[in-house]
Amino acid sequence: MMKYYEVYGKLTKSKGHEQFEWSHSYSKVFKPTTPYNASGMFMYFSNYNVEVRDRVKCISATEGVPVSTQWEASGYYYPVQVAQYGLSHYSKNLSEPPPKRKVLEDGNTFTAKWQVPKGAYIRRNYDSAKLTHVLEFNSRDSAGISLRLKQGTDLVLSFDLRFLSMNGSLTLFLEDRDRSQTFPVSFTCSSVLVEAHNASGSYSTIYGMGNCQSWNRLTRDLHIDLVKGHVLSGRGKKLSRTKLRVHHLLLKGNGQLDNLTLASSNHMDMFYSSADWLVVHQDSSGGWPIGVKRKIASGRADLDPGWYSAMGQGQAMSLLMRAFYRSGKPHYLEAALKGMQPFSKSSTEGGVRAYFMNQYPWYEEYPTVPPSFVLNGFIYSLIGLYDVVSLAPPNQVGDAQLLFDQGMHSLKKLLPLFDTGSGTVYDLRHFTLGLAPNIARWDYHSTHINQLLLLSTIDSDPILTNVAERWISYMSGKRAAHN
Amino acid sequence: MMKYYEVYGKLTKSKGHEQFEWSHSYSKVFKPTTPYNASGMFMYFSNYNVEVRDRVKCISATEGVPVSTQWEASGYYYPVQVAQYGLSHYSKNLSEPPPKRKVLEDGNTFTAKWQVPKGAYIRRNYDSAKLTHVLEFNSRDSAGISLRLKQGTDLVLSFDLRFLSMNGSLTLFLEDRDRSQTFPVSFTCSSVLVEAHNASGSYSTIYGMGNCQSWNRLTRDLHIDLVKGHVLSGRGKKLSRTKLRVHHLLLKGNGQLDNLTLASSNHMDMFYSSADWLVVHQDSSGGWPIGVKRKIASGRADLDPGWYSAMGQGQAMSLLMRAFYRSGKPHYLEAALKGMQPFSKSSTEGGVRAYFMNQYPWYEEYPTVPPSFVLNGFIYSLIGLYDVVSLAPPNQVGDAQLLFDQGMHSLKKLLPLFDTGSGTVYDLRHFTLGLAPNIARWDYHSTHINQLLLLSTIDSDPILTNVAERWISYMSGKRAAHN
Repeated sequence: MMKYYEVYGKLTKSKGHEQFEWSHSYSKVFKPTTPYNASGMFMYFSNYNVEVRDRVKCISATEGVPVSTQWEASGYYYPVQVAQYGLSHYSKNLSEPPPKRKVLEDGNTFTAKWQVPKGAYIRRNYDSAKLTHVLEFNSRDSAGISLRLKQGTDLVLSFDLRFLSMNGSLTLFLEDRDRSQTFPVSFTCSSVLVEAHNASGSYSTIYGMGNCQSWNRLTRDLHIDLVKGHVLSGRGKKLSRTKLRVHHLLLKGNGQLDNLTLASSNHMDMFYSSADWLVVHQDSSGGWPIGVKRKIASGRADLDPGWYSAMGQGQAMSLLMRAFYRSGKPHYLEAALKGMQPFSKSSTEGGVRAYFMNQYPWYEEYPTVPPSFVLNGFIYSLIGLYDVVSLAPPNQVGDAQLLFDQGMHSLKKLLPLFDTGSGTVYDLRHFTLGLAPNIARWDYHSTHINQLLLLSTIDSDPILTNVAERWISYMSGKRAAHN
Repeated sequence: MMKYYEVYGKLTKSKGHEQFEWSHSYSKVFKPTTPYNASGMFMYFSNYNVEVRDRVKCISATEGVPVSTQWEASGYYYPVQVAQYGLSHYSKNLSEPPPKRKVLEDGNTFTAKWQVPKGAYIRRNYDSAKLTHVLEFNSRDSAGISLRLKQGTDLVLSFDLRFLSMNGSLTLFLEDRDRSQTFPVSFTCSSVLVEAHNASGSYSTIYGMGNCQSWNRLTRDLHIDLVKGHVLSGRGKKLSRTKLRVHHLLLKGNGQLDNLTLASSNHMDMFYSSADWLVVHQDSSGGWPIGVKRKIASGRADLDPGWYSAMGQGQAMSLLMRAFYRSGKPHYLEAALKGMQPFSKSSTEGGVRAYFMNQYPWYEEYPTVPPSFVLNGFIYSLIGLYDVVSLAPPNQVGDAQLLFDQGMHSLKKLLPLFDTGSGTVYDLRHFTLGLAPNIARWDYHSTHINQLLLLSTIDSDPILTNVAERWISYMSGKRAAHN
């Protein structure tokens, strides 16, 4: 469980640096053994479990992507997080063995043994719109049509669903190993994001699917769905994945169901959910606007809702180019290429481009005025550009090569300014705002190192490895020489 | 003795930071209680004993200023060191009680009991060139004319001397307290800087006065003169000042002597020796050229002999303005004003002016190409400019105010780049040369703090005190926050 749960960002308050350094798996340096490959795993993101993070409220049942509460408790879609969610699942798909997968019901080849109460019915028929057989169900006034499930610990459920009635629901009943408790997780026709109910000691979690009358395809990690409900109801997230199993499924209302599947994982579905979200939510400037205010330094250099992040753009590009590579669908490429537009527009004009001392361009994770020059976000944006250069058809690369080359030039020049002689600074706000240096905690420090090591596999300039090696040495207590 | 001897720069190799921080008096922060005064003490330089430093070979008997061996073992005059020598004595003159002082012989009012051997003679007569009475002496073939001295531990000797013969010498015989040994220190007509002789266990130290036929005024700290001879002969410098006394003085040759004086100190003579050296050795560009090669970073950014130092210029200006203030002599003012000329000339053209990213002017302690941006040297240069602004007649200030204001503007902007979050960097060579940061050892760190505290008394911008307070906190182990 320790390995599964990402404790990233939680230990900093209670533990000192040294302990943090050695105890926290996210402070690890991953020395690349092969050159970075734009269609391969994204860094060490196969170790990420974005959805487990405390600051992820839940995976939206309408969008299939995480909802963040980091800067606004009510929740919002954070493009960086959406992209990281997709990239982590893309990487897991490459790093993990193929999933176990069982189709339970597709209205045709696979049929399940539904328990249909009196007055209710199920039918399997050809749907002329979907061009495939589907299961039609109608629970009428009964308690619902149920299906007993014995899939062990395979907890990733996927299905296509639409309702013909105004209301309806699909509910999973999860059971802990000793069968002492059952936890229902429902997907309903509602616009609510997620709700947790507690009726006389019986807890239930509800996700809204939004408009139910058209086909929705959902892929759900039921463990995550349950844990997020438990966190919401104040019961904490201590629900071990390995101790859960699906007991049964219950359909209510009148609707159609297809491709009901339980699997040990379904990373590519989750990956494409992110890619599709990015395609749909890109605006006319090519950006993925972030709808929350971002406070940087106590009232100075704040960002008003609607800002873009070069990191968000870059991570989205990394994800979209992989989606294009895997699917061949041109709209992913188009979105990635459009995502470069804010790189050529100044932060002061709604873009993400800043200049260090009017000379070195920098792509800003937080396009503050004055600039903040966050290092890790900048490098993620460079990797995004590199992925475009690598995977776009040569005649469609656009500005990607130029933007990447200019960025690398800036990076190599400004890298020493992030070196404290015993660690790194997270950004250069001390310079632009005249503040104390914003020291990078060890997990960001190791991120800096991992990013440089990645770049060193695609750019042979010795400054990248030299700096990375020095920064690695800081992690074991070494210091730059004093005079 | 610990307090007297400046161990500055010697403990760094053998001791770690923490120990160094607490054990080394030069890592102290001196919080100013009054605004900085351009005619007052220079920082905490009253604590300096420049001449004791290992890298000072000796005090030249021709120039009355220290000879450095820091970057060239054969010795050279280093304007920074000359100015610091003068500024420390100026400051000591203000901080110490008035010296004990006894005139032994002036050929008129004060006459000493000379022991004149057969054939030798002394006469006291009016010198029409010097416009005062002097003692004429001629030892002829004798062992010399001697004077028994019982001045205890007053070891600062001064005299006016010239020889009518080609050769001649004035020798002091110093004795340790238990009278077990006698150490002669001679001043001779020779061009040698300093020599140590060992004739069958009898050690002697010889300083050359250069041309003896015209009047020389010498002010000598005999303890220093003896210690430097002992270091030269490999006997080490463990000769306690308090255990030494002058036993007798011996004159040889035919010459004239005046104003023979022993005193507990003579800081103002030493101060004016520095001021006069600076006036004489300033070149037509207003600079004090440094005649040794300076290696900065293993072959990159080296300085060839003849370079100027903004720190040297600034410290010289601080000293010369005090000499002008105290003496009223305009040639000191003129030299100080001329000393500003290299501040307006680029390092690439033989000046000391660099720009950070073509925008912020910086006065370079080491005018390397690319620039090195040494912090402490820059601030010393600003203090020099401030001293000119403060003490020059308003209509003669020239560029001093503009240079000072521009420099302060750069300082405030670039100060955060020297902050590592746990200490300071000495310079910005990591940025300009792409190297590891050059961490300032604790004594330089405290110099940075002391300089900022000084500036904070003449400029109320809160960044100066804020940064100084943060840097002070680093000395007791505090760190800037991490994210």
